[in-house]
Amino acid sequence: MNPWIIRSQEIQPISKEWVQKAHRRLDSQTRPQGSLGYLEGVVAKLVSIQQKDRPQLEKKRILVFAGDHGIEREGVSLYPREVTKAMVMNFLNGGATINALARQIKADVKVIDVGVDADFIEHDSLIQAKVARGTRNFKQEPAMTGEELNKALEIGWRMVEEAQRDQVDILAIGEMGIGNTTAASAVIAACLKVQPALVAGRGTGINQEGLQHKIRVIEESIAKHATHLDHPLNILQHVGGYEIAAMTGVFLACAHYSLPVVLDGVVVAAAALCAFQLNPVISEYVFIGHESEERAHRFVLEKFGQQPLLRLSMRLGEASGAALAISILEAGVRIYNEVATFEEAQVANKKESVPNLQ
Amino acid sequence: MNPWIIRSQEIQPISKEWVQKAHRRLDSQTRPQGSLGYLEGVVAKLVSIQQKDRPQLEKKRILVFAGDHGIEREGVSLYPREVTKAMVMNFLNGGATINALARQIKADVKVIDVGVDADFIEHDSLIQAKVARGTRNFKQEPAMTGEELNKALEIGWRMVEEAQRDQVDILAIGEMGIGNTTAASAVIAACLKVQPALVAGRGTGINQEGLQHKIRVIEESIAKHATHLDHPLNILQHVGGYEIAAMTGVFLACAHYSLPVVLDGVVVAAAALCAFQLNPVISEYVFIGHESEERAHRFVLEKFGQQPLLRLSMRLGEASGAALAISILEAGVRIYNEVATFEEAQVANKKESVPNLQ
Repeated sequence: MNPWIIRSQEIQPISKEWVQKAHRRLDSQTRPQGSLGYLEGVVAKLVSIQQKDRPQLEKKRILVFAGDHGIEREGVSLYPREVTKAMVMNFLNGGATINALARQIKADVKVIDVGVDADFIEHDSLIQAKVARGTRNFKQEPAMTGEELNKALEIGWRMVEEAQRDQVDILAIGEMGIGNTTAASAVIAACLKVQPALVAGRGTGINQEGLQHKIRVIEESIAKHATHLDHPLNILQHVGGYEIAAMTGVFLACAHYSLPVVLDGVVVAAAALCAFQLNPVISEYVFIGHESEERAHRFVLEKFGQQPLLRLSMRLGEASGAALAISILEAGVRIYNEVATFEEAQVANKKESVPNLQ
Repeated sequence: MNPWIIRSQEIQPISKEWVQKAHRRLDSQTRPQGSLGYLEGVVAKLVSIQQKDRPQLEKKRILVFAGDHGIEREGVSLYPREVTKAMVMNFLNGGATINALARQIKADVKVIDVGVDADFIEHDSLIQAKVARGTRNFKQEPAMTGEELNKALEIGWRMVEEAQRDQVDILAIGEMGIGNTTAASAVIAACLKVQPALVAGRGTGINQEGLQHKIRVIEESIAKHATHLDHPLNILQHVGGYEIAAMTGVFLACAHYSLPVVLDGVVVAAAALCAFQLNPVISEYVFIGHESEERAHRFVLEKFGQQPLLRLSMRLGEASGAALAISILEAGVRIYNEVATFEEAQVANKKESVPNLQ
């Protein structure tokens, strides 16, 4: 059997006992029960993943996977392929939106070249793990070989092992790759068996005509590979991308190693969906950073049965939505760790002054 | 004419030139135009209020206004009146949810006693400005006198002047007062002329029967004072509360002095609505921290024509939603100030490598 299927089947659910324990603590704190809304379930989930009486998000890491896409040659993006390289340089120079957000939440940023069609010189923040200089044009042939798929998945897995070694408490996952919303939409359409027209979006900002063209490209690509789109790994190989496959590896490894991971926009969601279809339990380790403007995103969130932490109509990628959401998670952790219980406040004040609910 | 009406009429709109200038900078930064969604408009608004090339949110202050309510005697809350005092003590001891959030965003917290039915000893974080020991029961008589209303409004105004002197960059506003969602719902129902049944919520967590009772109390109170509910100031006097009136003073003063202010839940929204009805321009200085679970909140947000920064189904008060939202605003400011423009990135990279959108 494929080793990735074996790995994914070994993943265990998070501890229900720890979830209950976390809710008991939240309920004991000096505020009306349930008054933090959705944030309470999110914090309880984090506590259960970390299995710590006092959860922590000290060390945060942002992984940005970059790769080029053969499908870009079909004119599906507003930007030329060269922008992938230029934006990787921008990330390394600290000039991009994700760098500002990383400084805000005090996270380190690692850029992983899994398939950019360019060469880079060495840089502390760059991990050179190129599978190839861009995928093949999947309108004409499979995006990658089975061997390349394994390599890409393995890179993601390795990044999580490295984060474990570095005692990272939480990962935010993002990507850069001109053409990759086309690949992501194709992956999501194939995984969920929905019409491309329902899951294709405007990416970096194409117009209505551009969107119609993009939909046709996805439709034709899916039709071409139809007989091979029977399994998430085959879907990744035929219409995916190197960075999407690498992120699927990240999600599998995060669930395997019990490391909380925050999902960004639609391209990351495509990767998470493939992992989810290998084993739905992975969703227990995933936090939904935000709800993207890209339509396909919503389909994946529904599958995961989770609400996003933010709904700001963002559509940038780069892990921007995931990084922004980490500040909310941090606040939740601080509340969990620091707010006085009714009992503690009673000690400090009057015994009868802060009654618990009913 | 009432001096508060004169003050409110003097308020000026924010600068449209600065809004445009801010959008030009956002559009020039290395990401697809508009890809930060709603956050872009929020940051542009902040730039326009501060009128600075590089906006800043260094010094943050959280104001929590506390007061008791005569209407609490009608059994509209799950908690007894004494909890207002106990929670004020909890705020001063640093044990409440808002204290944890304040530490998270590095804000100072000022608790203003505008009407708690208890005495406090001196404390650095406590501002003793008690108008009276709780409002009167507005089911039977006006909540306060005209003189008391003026005092409460003046306290809010003074807090903003103090913040100005202390060079505070942004305020988050919240409250504590058992019974105050009943007052807030009455104020909102009267201001918007909608049925109490549509704007009353479960507060700290009353059940369906409790909610029906709360709705009847509001209906009867509004019926009793009907002939006086013709103006927001009269509405505040008859069915409001000291902390609600003080916060109305805050919103007027923030617009007067050009200080950004973040709105919390439904009780703060009732105060903001009164200020808005005095002059709708105040909404240009207000940021919507979150959308509360309390139903009346939505009515006010619609009036303001703004989206909330967070939608987490919170219903705590204490400025918790406002404080949490400040971390998103801070991230937006950092992006605005730090992300490289296409031009700057071109200098570092290749001239043609990061083309701007069409």
